[in-house]
Amino acid sequence: MSKADRLIYLPLGGAGEIGMNAYVYGYGKPGKERLILVDIGVTFPDMDGTPGVNLIVPDIAWLEQNKHRLEAIFITHAHEDHVGGIGYLYKRLGGVPVYARAFTAHHARRKMLETGNAEEDIITASAYPEFIQAGPFNISFFPVAHSIPESSGMVIDTPAGRVVHTGDFKLDETPVLGEPFDENMWREIAKDGVKALVCDSTNVFSLKAGGSEIAVAPEITKLVSEAKGMVVATTFASNVARLKSLADAGLAAGRSICLLGRAMQRMVAAGEATGVIGKFPPTIPVEDARDLPRENLMLIVTGSQGERRAASAQLANGKYLGMQMKEGDLFLFSSKTIPGNEKGVIRIMNAYSEMGVDVVDDTAGIYHVSGHANQPDILRAHEIFNPQIVIPMHGEHRHLRKHAILAKENGRASQLAVNGMIIELTGIQPKVVEYIETGRTYLDGSVQIGAFDGIIRDRIRMALNGHVLATIIIDENDEPLGDPWIEVMGLAETGTSNAPLVDIVEADLGQMLMRSNDKTLRDDAKLERDIKKEVRRSVQAEIGKKPEVTVIVTRLV
Amino acid sequence: MSKADRLIYLPLGGAGEIGMNAYVYGYGKPGKERLILVDIGVTFPDMDGTPGVNLIVPDIAWLEQNKHRLEAIFITHAHEDHVGGIGYLYKRLGGVPVYARAFTAHHARRKMLETGNAEEDIITASAYPEFIQAGPFNISFFPVAHSIPESSGMVIDTPAGRVVHTGDFKLDETPVLGEPFDENMWREIAKDGVKALVCDSTNVFSLKAGGSEIAVAPEITKLVSEAKGMVVATTFASNVARLKSLADAGLAAGRSICLLGRAMQRMVAAGEATGVIGKFPPTIPVEDARDLPRENLMLIVTGSQGERRAASAQLANGKYLGMQMKEGDLFLFSSKTIPGNEKGVIRIMNAYSEMGVDVVDDTAGIYHVSGHANQPDILRAHEIFNPQIVIPMHGEHRHLRKHAILAKENGRASQLAVNGMIIELTGIQPKVVEYIETGRTYLDGSVQIGAFDGIIRDRIRMALNGHVLATIIIDENDEPLGDPWIEVMGLAETGTSNAPLVDIVEADLGQMLMRSNDKTLRDDAKLERDIKKEVRRSVQAEIGKKPEVTVIVTRLV
Repeated sequence: MSKADRLIYLPLGGAGEIGMNAYVYGYGKPGKERLILVDIGVTFPDMDGTPGVNLIVPDIAWLEQNKHRLEAIFITHAHEDHVGGIGYLYKRLGGVPVYARAFTAHHARRKMLETGNAEEDIITASAYPEFIQAGPFNISFFPVAHSIPESSGMVIDTPAGRVVHTGDFKLDETPVLGEPFDENMWREIAKDGVKALVCDSTNVFSLKAGGSEIAVAPEITKLVSEAKGMVVATTFASNVARLKSLADAGLAAGRSICLLGRAMQRMVAAGEATGVIGKFPPTIPVEDARDLPRENLMLIVTGSQGERRAASAQLANGKYLGMQMKEGDLFLFSSKTIPGNEKGVIRIMNAYSEMGVDVVDDTAGIYHVSGHANQPDILRAHEIFNPQIVIPMHGEHRHLRKHAILAKENGRASQLAVNGMIIELTGIQPKVVEYIETGRTYLDGSVQIGAFDGIIRDRIRMALNGHVLATIIIDENDEPLGDPWIEVMGLAETGTSNAPLVDIVEADLGQMLMRSNDKTLRDDAKLERDIKKEVRRSVQAEIGKKPEVTVIVTRLV
Repeated sequence: MSKADRLIYLPLGGAGEIGMNAYVYGYGKPGKERLILVDIGVTFPDMDGTPGVNLIVPDIAWLEQNKHRLEAIFITHAHEDHVGGIGYLYKRLGGVPVYARAFTAHHARRKMLETGNAEEDIITASAYPEFIQAGPFNISFFPVAHSIPESSGMVIDTPAGRVVHTGDFKLDETPVLGEPFDENMWREIAKDGVKALVCDSTNVFSLKAGGSEIAVAPEITKLVSEAKGMVVATTFASNVARLKSLADAGLAAGRSICLLGRAMQRMVAAGEATGVIGKFPPTIPVEDARDLPRENLMLIVTGSQGERRAASAQLANGKYLGMQMKEGDLFLFSSKTIPGNEKGVIRIMNAYSEMGVDVVDDTAGIYHVSGHANQPDILRAHEIFNPQIVIPMHGEHRHLRKHAILAKENGRASQLAVNGMIIELTGIQPKVVEYIETGRTYLDGSVQIGAFDGIIRDRIRMALNGHVLATIIIDENDEPLGDPWIEVMGLAETGTSNAPLVDIVEADLGQMLMRSNDKTLRDDAKLERDIKKEVRRSVQAEIGKKPEVTVIVTRLV
C-alpha cells in the first residue's frame, strides 16, 4: 500500500432512500482510484412526484465520466432495486464485466437482452471462498439469507484492508429454500480483521430480532387447510421460498396449485433453470385450473403491492384468464405493504370484500417475515464481523442516522454517508473527502430525462391546474386577424357566468387585444406575456383556477 | 304508525369509504318519507385520483331533488369528514335548520360564513335528555367519547321505534377532556328497546379493546422530561384533549408552550369560547418563544399527516416564523398516519433526520390512542344497546362487511349498506328497497364538477402522457398556409434523432399534410383526426410516449 493511495466509498443510489442501489468503491491515488460498482438498481415512480415516468435510475454521470477507471460491476441479488438498472445504464459504463451468481445472472441477462445489450457481458460467479480479481480489488460473493434466492454480500479485499458489504440480508438459519445464515462462514471472513462493514439499515427501527421463514409455512398451512372455497395467495414474485411455502400448504390441503402472473412464472422458471429451487412443487396451468372444483384449487398470484396490472388487481376487477373470485373464497396477502402502496392494496381488499371474499393480511404478524435484519440482528452482524468502521447503507436518512448512532454507541467508528458523498476509509476514522453531483434519472418512454429538466414539473402543473391553449393570428399589418381561439384541457366547461368557459376567455382576450397598442402587437414576447396573464385572470375569475397557458402567435408575413 | 309508513336509512357518503359522512333517515309513505340528514362531511383529494381538486363532497343530487321533504340537518361532531360540507352544500338543501352542539356549531358557523351563508342557520342544541322534534322524528344528541370535544351519537325516535346512530365513538371512561363514555346513560337510552343501531365500523379489525386517552399523558410527560433540546410535538389539531396532555407534559418539564399552526389555535380558541376546554394550560406567542432557550420550550404544531403547508412541514423545510429545529431537538408524532399519507410523513421524518433531530412516532403504541371503538368495544356497544338490527357505517366495504358478519354471529339482524342503498328498517329484517345514484362531487377552484365529467381524467392523462398542441392554418383555397406549428408541455425536448422533438413532429406533420387530399383538407373533423394520429405516431417513434394532442385548425375565409 503506497502512502498516497486511498480506499474510498461512494454511494450513487440507495443511501438516503430505499431503492436504486448503486455503491462505488475505489482504491488508488486521489482522483485516480480504480473503481468497482456494487449493484445498479432502479426505483419506482409514483403519481405524486413522477407521473408517467417508467422507471427511475441513479444519475451515473460521475461514473460515466470516470468509466476508464471502472474495473467491473458486481450484483448482489436479483431484486429490481439492485439489478434493474443494468440494461438501461450498461452502455454508458464502457462495457466492463458484470459479475453475479447464477440466479441473479439469469435475470441480469434477460435485462441485457431486453435493452439491446449482449447477455455475454454478464459473467456467472461462484460463491465464497472463490475470489474475483478486479484491479486492486479481490472480491468474493458470500451467501446471505434474504427474500430471493442466492442473495450475497461482498467480501472486498483491498490493499487497505477487507471491506464487507452485506447487501440485503437477514439472519435466518432456516430460510426454507436457499442458503441459510452461516455464522461460521461469517466468523471465518472476519477472523483476520474487517476494516469496514457497509451494512443494510432497512429494519433498524424494528426492535425485536427477526423471525425465520420457516415459521411462516405452518401458519399458512393451517389457514389454507381450514378454507372452504378457492384460496388465492399473493407475495412478492421473487420470494421463491414463500412461493414454495404457499404451494406446499396448498398441496398439504389437497389442492392443486396454479401460478398466475408472468413475474411469478418467470421467477420459478429461473429458479429451476439455475438449480436454486431444487424441485418446486407441481403446478397446473390455468387452463386446467378452470375445470377444477374451487375447494380443490389454490392460486398463487402476483400483485402483493396492489399493482394495477398484476393478477391480484385483475381478479379484483372481475374475470382474469377465466378465473373469478366468489363469495366464500379466501385471499391471503403473505406480504407487507411498502409505504406509498397502501391505497392500491386497500382498493383491492375492498373489491374482494364486495365479492364476499375473506381477505387475510399480515396484521397478526404470522403470514410474512421480512427479508431484512432487524436492529438486534444488525448489531449481531456488527459483533460477528467486528469491523473498525461501520458505514450504514440501504436506508432512508433516518435509518442511516439511527444505524450510525448505534454503531458509535458500541464504540465503532461510523459515518452517515448519503448519495454523492465520497468517504475515505483508509484511516482510523472514516472521512468525507468530497461531494459529487448525483441524483435521479427518469426513464420516460424511450428516453432518459433528468429530475430537474422541468418536464415532470410541467406535467404535475397540468394535472393540478389544467391547461389552456390560446392561439391568435396577426396579419401583415400587425393587427389581429379574426378572433383569438381558446382550447382547454382539464378544466370545468362552465363557471360563474354559466356561459362556456372558452367563450368567456375568448371574449376577454379579444377585448384585451383591442386595447393593446401597436408596440405590443409587434412584440411577440410581450404579446405572449400579456395573453398569458389575461387568460389566467379570466379563468381565475370564472372558475377559480390559475391554469397553465400555452400561447401560439402566428404571423402572416 | 300507519301500516303503509316505513322507516328508511340511506347513506349518501361514509358507507363504503372512510370520509364525507352523510346519512339520511326517512319516515312516511314510500317515496314520501319525511327526511333528516345526519352529518355532511368532506373527503380529501390526492394526486393519484383527483389532482388539483380542492375538496370532495358527497353527490347530494337525490337529496336536492327531495329537499321539500327534508326537515333538518344534524351534525354529530366537528371533524371535517362530518361537518366540512355544510358551507358548500347548504344552499342546495333549501335552508333547513342545522342542529349541532356548541363546539360543533361554532365550527359550522365559521364554515357557513366562509361560503356566503348565514351563521344563524346553525342552531345550538343541548345534549340528551333534551330532544328536538323534526317532522316525524324526535332526536337527541347523546355525548360519546371520541377525539374531538362534544362528539355525539344521535337518539332518533320514530313511530317505528328508536334508532341509535353512534357517530364516531370510543369507550373511554377517562378521556382527559370532555365527556367520558357513560354506560349508565347508554343503558337508559336502550332500556325501552332499540330498533336499529347504526354503528361506527372504523376499527373493527383492531382485535384488542381500545386504550384510554388518559394513558397517553404519562408517557408523553416522561419523554418530554428526558428531552435535552427543544421539543416539538404534533397531533390532529382537533384532538384538544391530546393538545392538553402535550401542553401539560411540557409545563411539568418546566417548558413554555407555544402553539404553531392556524388550525390548532382555532381549535383551542373554539374550545375556550364554547367552554368545552375549561382552562387550557397557558401558552406563549411565537414572538416570545424565539427568545427562550430551546431547552425551556415546547412547540405543539399542526401537520401530523405530513401536510405540505402545515407547521411540521414548514419546520422541516427550514425556518418558520423565526423558529428552527436543530441537532439534539426532539420531534414527536403523537398521532397515527392515515393510509395514503405515509410518504408525506416519511419525507418530514427524513428532513428532521438531516437536521440531527430525534424523531419519535407511535411505533411503540404509547404516544397515541385512536378515537374509534375497536372490535371488542363495538361488540360491547351492541351488547349495551341490544338492538334488533345492526347497520354498520363509517367504514370501507371491508369494515362494514366484517362488522355485519360479527353482528349476525351474535344473532342480530344486519345489513351491509353502502352509499346509495335505501334500507327499510321497519320490519324484523332490514331490507334493501331501492338503489339511488350517488357518488362524489369535486370542489375545483370555485366550481363543483362531477367525478365522471372527464375533467380530472384529462388532467391525469396530461400528467401521464404529456400534451402536444398542433396548429395549422388553412387558406381560402383549402391549402395549408405555411408550416404546422407544434408546442409541447411535459415531454422530453429531444429523442432518438437528437433533433428537437418539435422540429421532428412539425416535419412529419408537414409531410402528412402534403400527402392529404383535398377532401381531407376541407373536412375539419377528418383533418383533426389525421393530425392527432400523425402527432402521436411521430412522438411515439421519437421518444416512446403517446401524448394527449390538441389540434387547432384555423381557416382563413
